[in-house]
Amino acid sequence: MNLTFIIGFIAAFVLVIYGMVSGGTSVSQVMSSFIDIPSVFITFGGAFSATVMSVPMKDLKDIPKHMKILLKKEKVDINQYIEVIVDLAKEARLKGLLVLEEKIKTMDLKDDFLEYCTMLIVDAIEPSKVRAQIENEIDCIEMRHARAWNVYDKLGSFGPAFGMLGTLIGLINMLANMDTSGGSDALGKGMAVALVTTFYGSVLVNMVCAPVSNRLKAKHEEEMIVKELIMEGVLSIQSGENPKYIKEKLNSYLTYQERQASSENDGSATEKKKGSSKRGRKSQVNNA
Amino acid sequence: MNLTFIIGFIAAFVLVIYGMVSGGTSVSQVMSSFIDIPSVFITFGGAFSATVMSVPMKDLKDIPKHMKILLKKEKVDINQYIEVIVDLAKEARLKGLLVLEEKIKTMDLKDDFLEYCTMLIVDAIEPSKVRAQIENEIDCIEMRHARAWNVYDKLGSFGPAFGMLGTLIGLINMLANMDTSGGSDALGKGMAVALVTTFYGSVLVNMVCAPVSNRLKAKHEEEMIVKELIMEGVLSIQSGENPKYIKEKLNSYLTYQERQASSENDGSATEKKKGSSKRGRKSQVNNA
Amino acid sequence: MNLTFIIGFIAAFVLVIYGMVSGGTSVSQVMSSFIDIPSVFITFGGAFSATVMSVPMKDLKDIPKHMKILLKKEKVDINQYIEVIVDLAKEARLKGLLVLEEKIKTMDLKDDFLEYCTMLIVDAIEPSKVRAQIENEIDCIEMRHARAWNVYDKLGSFGPAFGMLGTLIGLINMLANMDTSGGSDALGKGMAVALVTTFYGSVLVNMVCAPVSNRLKAKHEEEMIVKELIMEGVLSIQSGENPKYIKEKLNSYLTYQERQASSENDGSATEKKKGSSKRGRKSQVNNA
Amino acid sequence: MNLTFIIGFIAAFVLVIYGMVSGGTSVSQVMSSFIDIPSVFITFGGAFSATVMSVPMKDLKDIPKHMKILLKKEKVDINQYIEVIVDLAKEARLKGLLVLEEKIKTMDLKDDFLEYCTMLIVDAIEPSKVRAQIENEIDCIEMRHARAWNVYDKLGSFGPAFGMLGTLIGLINMLANMDTSGGSDALGKGMAVALVTTFYGSVLVNMVCAPVSNRLKAKHEEEMIVKELIMEGVLSIQSGENPKYIKEKLNSYLTYQERQASSENDGSATEKKKGSSKRGRKSQVNNA
Amino acid sequence: MNLTFIIGFIAAFVLVIYGMVSGGTSVSQVMSSFIDIPSVFITFGGAFSATVMSVPMKDLKDIPKHMKILLKKEKVDINQYIEVIVDLAKEARLKGLLVLEEKIKTMDLKDDFLEYCTMLIVDAIEPSKVRAQIENEIDCIEMRHARAWNVYDKLGSFGPAFGMLGTLIGLINMLANMDTSGGSDALGKGMAVALVTTFYGSVLVNMVCAPVSNRLKAKHEEEMIVKELIMEGVLSIQSGENPKYIKEKLNSYLTYQERQASSENDGSATEKKKGSSKRGRKSQVNNA
Repeated sequence: MNLTFIIGFIAAFVLVIYGMVSGGTSVSQVMSSFIDIPSVFITFGGAFSATVMSVPMKDLKDIPKHMKILLKKEKVDINQYIEVIVDLAKEARLKGLLVLEEKIKTMDLKDDFLEYCTMLIVDAIEPSKVRAQIENEIDCIEMRHARAWNVYDKLGSFGPAFGMLGTLIGLINMLANMDTSGGSDALGKGMAVALVTTFYGSVLVNMVCAPVSNRLKAKHEEEMIVKELIMEGVLSIQSGENPKYIKEKLNSYLTYQERQASSENDGSATEKKKGSSKRGRKSQVNNA
Repeated sequence: MNLTFIIGFIAAFVLVIYGMVSGGTSVSQVMSSFIDIPSVFITFGGAFSATVMSVPMKDLKDIPKHMKILLKKEKVDINQYIEVIVDLAKEARLKGLLVLEEKIKTMDLKDDFLEYCTMLIVDAIEPSKVRAQIENEIDCIEMRHARAWNVYDKLGSFGPAFGMLGTLIGLINMLANMDTSGGSDALGKGMAVALVTTFYGSVLVNMVCAPVSNRLKAKHEEEMIVKELIMEGVLSIQSGENPKYIKEKLNSYLTYQERQASSENDGSATEKKKGSSKRGRKSQVNNA
Repeated sequence: MNLTFIIGFIAAFVLVIYGMVSGGTSVSQVMSSFIDIPSVFITFGGAFSATVMSVPMKDLKDIPKHMKILLKKEKVDINQYIEVIVDLAKEARLKGLLVLEEKIKTMDLKDDFLEYCTMLIVDAIEPSKVRAQIENEIDCIEMRHARAWNVYDKLGSFGPAFGMLGTLIGLINMLANMDTSGGSDALGKGMAVALVTTFYGSVLVNMVCAPVSNRLKAKHEEEMIVKELIMEGVLSIQSGENPKYIKEKLNSYLTYQERQASSENDGSATEKKKGSSKRGRKSQVNNA
Repeated sequence: MNLTFIIGFIAAFVLVIYGMVSGGTSVSQVMSSFIDIPSVFITFGGAFSATVMSVPMKDLKDIPKHMKILLKKEKVDINQYIEVIVDLAKEARLKGLLVLEEKIKTMDLKDDFLEYCTMLIVDAIEPSKVRAQIENEIDCIEMRHARAWNVYDKLGSFGPAFGMLGTLIGLINMLANMDTSGGSDALGKGMAVALVTTFYGSVLVNMVCAPVSNRLKAKHEEEMIVKELIMEGVLSIQSGENPKYIKEKLNSYLTYQERQASSENDGSATEKKKGSSKRGRKSQVNNA
Repeated sequence: MNLTFIIGFIAAFVLVIYGMVSGGTSVSQVMSSFIDIPSVFITFGGAFSATVMSVPMKDLKDIPKHMKILLKKEKVDINQYIEVIVDLAKEARLKGLLVLEEKIKTMDLKDDFLEYCTMLIVDAIEPSKVRAQIENEIDCIEMRHARAWNVYDKLGSFGPAFGMLGTLIGLINMLANMDTSGGSDALGKGMAVALVTTFYGSVLVNMVCAPVSNRLKAKHEEEMIVKELIMEGVLSIQSGENPKYIKEKLNSYLTYQERQASSENDGSATEKKKGSSKRGRKSQVNNA
């Protein structure tokens, strides 16, 4: 479970409700001030309708899938990927590329993209074509991912827009009926109702759409780093590079702390050149 | 028919009208509050006039065409295109490129861009020139499409601008005549009328222009994926690549589910390498 | 004359004035409400002063030239350019590149850029240098054009800014003098005057600057397409390509309808390969 | 002196002050309405403090230098640069590249960048390295220039932000003390004071920061064109191109009028090919 | 210590507090007007919760590290780096690349990135691979740095959003309870409380988030220049270029003043060619 997302979500709602209650006279009164059915329809219904117009049905159907991705604790361990690729590189050096087909199926780490890339080099396709094909695969994934957050960006832009539309409707109705309404108290209540749609629109974008879109983008970026790392690693394996050199190369994808941790996990068993390991440890000590 | 667009459009209008009626005292009163002829002229007329100034006539004349494109149910079946290209590749391998001219005309799938690209390789133009020409064709299509949504983007930015202009006019008139107007009730009515133009502007952008522009862009992106797929496929045919390899290459344009579906449709008849088909099935299981 | 621009401009002004008059009590009263000399100075004067500070004098001096460009009916007929280039290609094939120098001067179509490009190949400069030089020429034109709409973009951003500044000045003066002013009627009038500058700023950007800037950009884009077409055509002539093939290549710059029209104009006289002409006719039938 | 900048600056201030005075009852009253010491501290002080936080000290120290650049009348005469480069090309053709070292020091035109570039070819560095080094030099200049206007962009964005902050502080204080304040007159005065900070923020951005930033960018662009022209010219000299051809090439950086003027200044003395000069004169007659 | 950042921060707070106190009747009254616990929870709590939803936990954990980076006086002396690289180049010319491993460890300047790059050329990896690997390293650093300021950008966009949300809640509560509240004084107090959240949101973005994000970006840019300089220098060393030429090349990263200072520090000891040193001194005299 992606706890931080859920905790953030609950915290935001609790804080806003606390604010609503602390400023009102009683809970029931607050409920009646902030819950207004026509406002719900105009703001949420209107924003959703405009999003349905804007976005292909197919993308809307994926909303449950997006939620699953968001809530899944998908801690990406880049170190593990580097280990795996270095292992594959060692195998390939000893026994040839063909043995990777077997190896990739028996590994602990299940990653379809890694498998896909490895099979390309097993199939002995020429290096430049392998790169082109993996890059195209990554581009296509990127395009599909972008469609995911596009839904929330659109909903998040229509939310406040329909909120304002609702407030305008409320204001016009209130102002046009000023003579028939009962004085300034009724005027205040009318204004309050008019503002509820703006409130809903603001809640929709700031507590749902923007955070979801931001987090999907953040997840996407993490995933893309792994994909790029896999591509570089697999292409290095194909060109028969030294596993130790491959490891150093892929270390660029780690921060200094992660590199150090990785080196320590290696323990004393690996026959590393002193200088090189020290270098790995220290490099980028001052890069965030 | 593109039902989701139409349903979204109707839903948005119904919801907004429901909101208008639910807040007023009577339908006729709501009608009189929200319908104001001079406001219609200022907002819609003004926004349209400014768009006429901004955009070449030619682009405005295409509005009915855009509507037809929007309402057309144009479910793009990428799988079908891959099938067709693989078929063409098989033909070309057996009987040479020239036979494609006949083949392309007798196919079920009618796609002018595919025909255009195929004819280029039938005409035995050299590969780098074919790529350059298809890319130029795609660029030109892209430019023409961009002119389509530009109309709605411009109209959508002038809508609220003229809405605000109208509200300013209303406010200035109202405030300047405060002494001659009949008290706060008249003031309220004046304000209501002034706000109607802002309301119109907001309706224009959020319920018409933005959704239309968004949807045209979404349609364009889908179309561009197909065009790119066709280009890659046709160039692969020209370079005489293995049809099975072409299929794998083009599979990048599919999500995992679509790839799986495509594999199952193939059934047991095709003599596929086990490993390869399984790979196709599983790859990208965790990519949206 | 570019009628749509002028009609749009007049329509926008008529509609706004109609809105002003329809909401007021009398024309003279409306005049006095909306015309305020100090407001004119603050908004238009201020915005123009800030633009003078922002933009080199040279660019401001070109304003009359921009107006001439805007109002000129400059219907670009891409077909005609393609015809001309194909003619030049035929000449060049028969009699060599040198004959183009004569030919270009005796043609109906007078286009300095076409002449410039043709002279480059007549001078027998090597192809890669010709491309580099034409591309540099296009880049320089692009930079100069961008300076044109930059003036209106800047003026259009300072317009509403100085409008708001004027409104702030009006409000502060009004509020500071509340005790000396004569009650709520005077207050209303003060507010009305304060809002006039915001109104002016909004008029400046929405009815002048934004449409002018948009239209200049649209004209620029059309011109760039022609320039690119000329470049591709002239380079094709230099490399001695088949005139028919050049025509097909340049057809990418036309929409389907235009290609069809062009084919029909060719009539039966031209000895075209059936398949090829049909292809030209049908391709892109579903591209806007 | 860059007169237009100074005139624009003075005009904007005079117009705004005229607007302030024309709307008030007396000059002294206007002074007291618009000058409020705490507002000055919050808006200008706050915006400057936030800019100090945002921008390295080094960039702030350059403010006087920026002012000098802004006020310097630095009319760039592109024609003169072309002349000089063509002269250098002629020298180099006759007497070799080494003679340029002497020549460049005795010329009227003093330009360090031109000298820098010329010395690179005098030092007989190979062409591709010369290009790389000049491009790197230009990139570094660009980065340094961007830091200049960044200061004004940041100050210009914090100005209105702190203006609004000040207005919020004023409003909260005023509203919280409504009972102790003396009726609606005092309320009006409180509002007026609150709005003064918004006014200051608007003045800061629209009359100082935005114009300065815009003008620095405009100056930068002009300078970059000259630098690019010098680079192209010097590289052409190194590759031993014909001076006449170099002149034609560099003419791309001129508008049509400037080319014509340049041709006329050449007079009859230069032994130009008729066709070529005419071409130079006419090309781009319709490009702004 | 990065004094300017701290001084700016303190100055901004002092100025805002001065503004708050100067406009109120007494300090205790100001305290009670501007400090409201529920408002704190809604604005800061809400904005932080939404940021927690938007950004991976890992990035939030780095906030103390960002603060340390911000407050660290990290005056980058580009000159020193150039000196060091020129020294390394001289060593390498005399004694070969291998000696650099020892040299780099005994130098005064400790820079992990420089060490990392130097070790790559010591390990005798081929030049094109070295460049690719350093560029990848720089890209990865860039990606990590971008995640740092992304946190503040997100927090800075949610701050005002939740501030407005709080104000809406306050307004709705106030307007809905107009009849039960005690007249216009209570109304004023209610409005004041409602506006406090907007005030908090504005403080959060303008006095914390925006300056922090801006400064992190500025630090990043400075660091990137050094990294690029190191890359160019190390690659020049590997290709065995003349140390003097390397120095001239790297001088592009300095402004004119810095170059001059560097030349003077060299003193008379270095056996420089006259012309070259003079050139170094003068070039770019008119580039900011």
